[in-house]
Amino acid sequence: MIIVMEHNSTREQLDRVVKYIENRGLKAQINNGTVLDVVAVLGDKTQLNAESIAAMDGVYEVKKIQEPYKLVSRAAHPEDTVISFPNGVKVGGLERPVLMVGPCSVEKDFEGLLKVATAAKEMGCQFLRGGAFKPRTSPYDFQGLEEKGLQYLAQAREKTGLLVVTEVMDTMDIALLCKYADVLQVGARNMQNFKLLKALGRIKKPIMIKRGPAATIKEFLLAAEYVVSNGNPNVILCERGVKGFDNQFTRNVLDISAVPIIRKYSHLPIIVDPSHATGKRFLIEPMGKAALISGAHGLMFEVHHDPDNALCDGAQSLNIEQFKETAKAFNKLIGRIDYDNKNNK
Amino acid sequence: MIIVMEHNSTREQLDRVVKYIENRGLKAQINNGTVLDVVAVLGDKTQLNAESIAAMDGVYEVKKIQEPYKLVSRAAHPEDTVISFPNGVKVGGLERPVLMVGPCSVEKDFEGLLKVATAAKEMGCQFLRGGAFKPRTSPYDFQGLEEKGLQYLAQAREKTGLLVVTEVMDTMDIALLCKYADVLQVGARNMQNFKLLKALGRIKKPIMIKRGPAATIKEFLLAAEYVVSNGNPNVILCERGVKGFDNQFTRNVLDISAVPIIRKYSHLPIIVDPSHATGKRFLIEPMGKAALISGAHGLMFEVHHDPDNALCDGAQSLNIEQFKETAKAFNKLIGRIDYDNKNNK
Amino acid sequence: MIIVMEHNSTREQLDRVVKYIENRGLKAQINNGTVLDVVAVLGDKTQLNAESIAAMDGVYEVKKIQEPYKLVSRAAHPEDTVISFPNGVKVGGLERPVLMVGPCSVEKDFEGLLKVATAAKEMGCQFLRGGAFKPRTSPYDFQGLEEKGLQYLAQAREKTGLLVVTEVMDTMDIALLCKYADVLQVGARNMQNFKLLKALGRIKKPIMIKRGPAATIKEFLLAAEYVVSNGNPNVILCERGVKGFDNQFTRNVLDISAVPIIRKYSHLPIIVDPSHATGKRFLIEPMGKAALISGAHGLMFEVHHDPDNALCDGAQSLNIEQFKETAKAFNKLIGRIDYDNKNNK
Amino acid sequence: MIIVMEHNSTREQLDRVVKYIENRGLKAQINNGTVLDVVAVLGDKTQLNAESIAAMDGVYEVKKIQEPYKLVSRAAHPEDTVISFPNGVKVGGLERPVLMVGPCSVEKDFEGLLKVATAAKEMGCQFLRGGAFKPRTSPYDFQGLEEKGLQYLAQAREKTGLLVVTEVMDTMDIALLCKYADVLQVGARNMQNFKLLKALGRIKKPIMIKRGPAATIKEFLLAAEYVVSNGNPNVILCERGVKGFDNQFTRNVLDISAVPIIRKYSHLPIIVDPSHATGKRFLIEPMGKAALISGAHGLMFEVHHDPDNALCDGAQSLNIEQFKETAKAFNKLIGRIDYDNKNNK
Repeated sequence: MIIVMEHNSTREQLDRVVKYIENRGLKAQINNGTVLDVVAVLGDKTQLNAESIAAMDGVYEVKKIQEPYKLVSRAAHPEDTVISFPNGVKVGGLERPVLMVGPCSVEKDFEGLLKVATAAKEMGCQFLRGGAFKPRTSPYDFQGLEEKGLQYLAQAREKTGLLVVTEVMDTMDIALLCKYADVLQVGARNMQNFKLLKALGRIKKPIMIKRGPAATIKEFLLAAEYVVSNGNPNVILCERGVKGFDNQFTRNVLDISAVPIIRKYSHLPIIVDPSHATGKRFLIEPMGKAALISGAHGLMFEVHHDPDNALCDGAQSLNIEQFKETAKAFNKLIGRIDYDNKNNK
Repeated sequence: MIIVMEHNSTREQLDRVVKYIENRGLKAQINNGTVLDVVAVLGDKTQLNAESIAAMDGVYEVKKIQEPYKLVSRAAHPEDTVISFPNGVKVGGLERPVLMVGPCSVEKDFEGLLKVATAAKEMGCQFLRGGAFKPRTSPYDFQGLEEKGLQYLAQAREKTGLLVVTEVMDTMDIALLCKYADVLQVGARNMQNFKLLKALGRIKKPIMIKRGPAATIKEFLLAAEYVVSNGNPNVILCERGVKGFDNQFTRNVLDISAVPIIRKYSHLPIIVDPSHATGKRFLIEPMGKAALISGAHGLMFEVHHDPDNALCDGAQSLNIEQFKETAKAFNKLIGRIDYDNKNNK
Repeated sequence: MIIVMEHNSTREQLDRVVKYIENRGLKAQINNGTVLDVVAVLGDKTQLNAESIAAMDGVYEVKKIQEPYKLVSRAAHPEDTVISFPNGVKVGGLERPVLMVGPCSVEKDFEGLLKVATAAKEMGCQFLRGGAFKPRTSPYDFQGLEEKGLQYLAQAREKTGLLVVTEVMDTMDIALLCKYADVLQVGARNMQNFKLLKALGRIKKPIMIKRGPAATIKEFLLAAEYVVSNGNPNVILCERGVKGFDNQFTRNVLDISAVPIIRKYSHLPIIVDPSHATGKRFLIEPMGKAALISGAHGLMFEVHHDPDNALCDGAQSLNIEQFKETAKAFNKLIGRIDYDNKNNK
Repeated sequence: MIIVMEHNSTREQLDRVVKYIENRGLKAQINNGTVLDVVAVLGDKTQLNAESIAAMDGVYEVKKIQEPYKLVSRAAHPEDTVISFPNGVKVGGLERPVLMVGPCSVEKDFEGLLKVATAAKEMGCQFLRGGAFKPRTSPYDFQGLEEKGLQYLAQAREKTGLLVVTEVMDTMDIALLCKYADVLQVGARNMQNFKLLKALGRIKKPIMIKRGPAATIKEFLLAAEYVVSNGNPNVILCERGVKGFDNQFTRNVLDISAVPIIRKYSHLPIIVDPSHATGKRFLIEPMGKAALISGAHGLMFEVHHDPDNALCDGAQSLNIEQFKETAKAFNKLIGRIDYDNKNNK
């Protein structure tokens, strides 16, 4: 930790800062600069409150050196986390990138869901996604089939062998979701619902956390740290776009640089959702390919058997025919990437 | 609803859109522009899915005309909502702006809390705020005293007569919080925790919703719509800063224009929190005054009896002496505003 | 300057960094942390290139301690800059806040301009603003009357005694503008047109720099530093809104916190333009008042004699009647602020 | 154009809007909605001022249907623009993507520049980039070699056959730059320097416009429209990152979705600069690949013979060895893309 003093701070203010640090068993090293004085703090800073120091008179700024996340950082855990499922599917590291597809929400028409799942299986996808509990910005929009939707997903899994990913919105629903799902997804709007994250740390199911639209990469990794530090190391991250200033063509800005950054500084798998980020069908293929080639461990995107009549997010869903064409393009690229990964580039 | 067709859309695509609309009992009015064709939809659009139409081939863009929020809009409810508390305090409309103060989190030292509450009462504040359940970005930060904290707040209320505002983080805690608090606050990070919002719609306690750091004003009003449409009309909005690109001096950009905008388009009370938005002590007074003069129904800001040793957000808390001086400045301005309001400017 | 090494950096990499620093005549102080090594650089860092060091192998991050602006910082120049005009008007410090008003662009109808100027004089304003050279996002929009417009402004000055503020868009036009204007304004889109800023540093006329919509406060102050370091100390800053993610109600987010921040860290005057930031007529009064009460040295806003037929930015211009009412409200507040300033609060 | 009236607008206000439209020779079609009245304007709207209408009493919002750019839109010009250089190099359409490399700024050491140019030629690059006039945020940073730098670039061209790209900062320098450069680059900070754009429309050299860090795609295309509508159709666009809220790891957010969007709605070539957007060496390869696979017509990135001692932007420059490895990876991908393009996927 580095403490920068105001240019007109007094000797007394500096002494008070130093005393504060030494009282907590740490060492304060003073660097008198030509313009500003700087105090470096040496020792274990976990018990030190940066904000309290920032509040002391005469302090201009406190710069933290050590990242506040630990368990999810590559510094603490150099080898990649690879999450293995009972059916042999693996996510992370140098494993073949995966595809997670399905409708935004599970609807009453089970046959429609089955059509999507069957096509997904046929195209080599590993996961079926679909919301049973739906977070909707407006209270007047469709809110999901709830348990009925979970049962449909489980039935589709039985028929196809696909793994099921679905969203958890409340601590009260965790037990129910664990009965039906293989991966519990934390939605972007819940990324800092800390009660939920803690509760998910106490189960063993893999958790997929979507990046909040205003979350920095540090905040994103700290959300994962909540789950891991509470006991569940099986976390998959999912980039899905951040808030930008231009929403004429896309809902959010897909931050593809998050992929190589997270792969460098964390060991957790990171996948990308090009559907929600962009909100546009024609962007799924180019943005999905961009994510894969930059190192994503997989893609999640929306497919609906009848997008024109979907109860949510029709505009960004592919129909089954479009899906097959897109999946073919992704599979071709995934094959090349997998080949390069296996053959050391 | 206005549907804009692509410049190279076909007659068949246009016909399909028109048929889709007419099949739902609505009227489609076609305007053939010099460059683009436009379809206006007339009738009750609540059952129409804009995203499905946007997904149809040949459609460039769908523009919604009617705002998706209803109950919270001034169009539906022209007179101001004023929330009245049993002790006679009122929030909203042309009532005298209120002050809500207290520590970021309630800590073990009850005497400290009482010092703050006593000073608040002395300076004419109406509300004591303090977190018992704390949302913290890092799992390693202090997470709150939980029920013990609520008891402390209730004791401070007993001794001072101040009303208590505290944060609810999970549907499971609502009943407990209702025992102790006068206003339940939804934190910025939970602004789109829709399960929580719905559950809060089923109680009668006033709810204060903080604006999410990436929430548009429309999304902010829709969060309130969740509570109101589920049965609880007692909602206070709270602007607390939005995510910006410059975080050298402030954590967020306090969007003061939200105050006059919300007063124009909604009837709900809107207060402002200059502490969290800026994260800096020296900005509380100028930004608090700016909020009041632009029409805010109150301010919420942080006061701690010993900010240097606060367990959270010390840097932005005033100590009791600073608080008294700031409250004096606010009271002077509130007096002038109240005078102007009562005397029709 | 503080150099933070990667957690897995080697001894050789650290040595190379130290040698790089010592070769430039500076002192490197190594702090071996429990997790990361940190190198503090002592001495005159003006010749040191932070980016080069950041690029060295094993370096995680370089944190600069000293602000890169000097002449415009309060550290270097503690007393406020007050800009005095020949007619006795003063801008800055504790002087009475000023009002700058006029149409977005000067148009062919000179009588219209004169009506605005006369009303401005009547209401106690000090400056007439109006564009002769207009920056327009679209090449098909009205581009300004050029020299004719400048002559109109000068004629209006002659008749009213108001000072003239107008925008300079190109180094080639500086000499011409100096003939007619009292303050040369650098538009938001030119805030980092460094050739222009340098050229304006070589004249003596006061320069008003508008904040770029994506400029941090540091970048804003560095733009001023360009002018001041080239020889012209007469700079006024103007906050006019920054790019945000919500443009349903406003074009930009007016960052009022920039006012108290700039007054704390710089000695230059800072005024606020609530017209361009918000783009809405009904927001001029509440946001103008918010700016004044937070410490702004003045306001600039748009008035047009016939906004419905204005060639640019009609939606945000007040007509003369609205202007008089708004100016009355501002004058009332300015009177109170001036009284408080003169009487030490 | 669609005009939405306020929910409480009067019949008189509506009539006034209709009269305003009809007075300008256009047709107003009124749709009385269940909640809001809407007026559709039919006819040639180029002479209609949306902002004036938005300012009329009773108007809630004006929605433009037709895009304000024309010449650069694919609607007006369906086939791709391909820019051909005398040496046979082509940029745009389905041509093989190009590579533009070189130092951020040209420095005194000509041999260093030549090393970079030679390596670039060897790796099959088509363009040498380098700044002679440098826009620098701080006035104390290196400002460029000016004409000397241009001469160096021209000499390097002579020896290698590479085409030269360099930045123009001021209308006064255009003639000089035309003597030496093959492509004149407009920097991100000058994207809305309209005087400069107009002047560049009057020459014939290809112009490369970098996207401003706060520019929407529409504003970006309108900047190009300035050049094209003034007579120069040879414009290349360059995405280089937009301002985001997280600058811990990257300077800007590289908006890769701009590539497929611009390819869909404009016919101009679009290339991507992964160096400036990210500011980090390790991100050049993954982000460059992501740009190429999403459809970019080329990449521009920084290479320096001695990045540790570069006078600007060392941290983001590759050294020659790193460059060769990266170019090899890009060439492999470009080969595959070119193959797919030529063979219809």
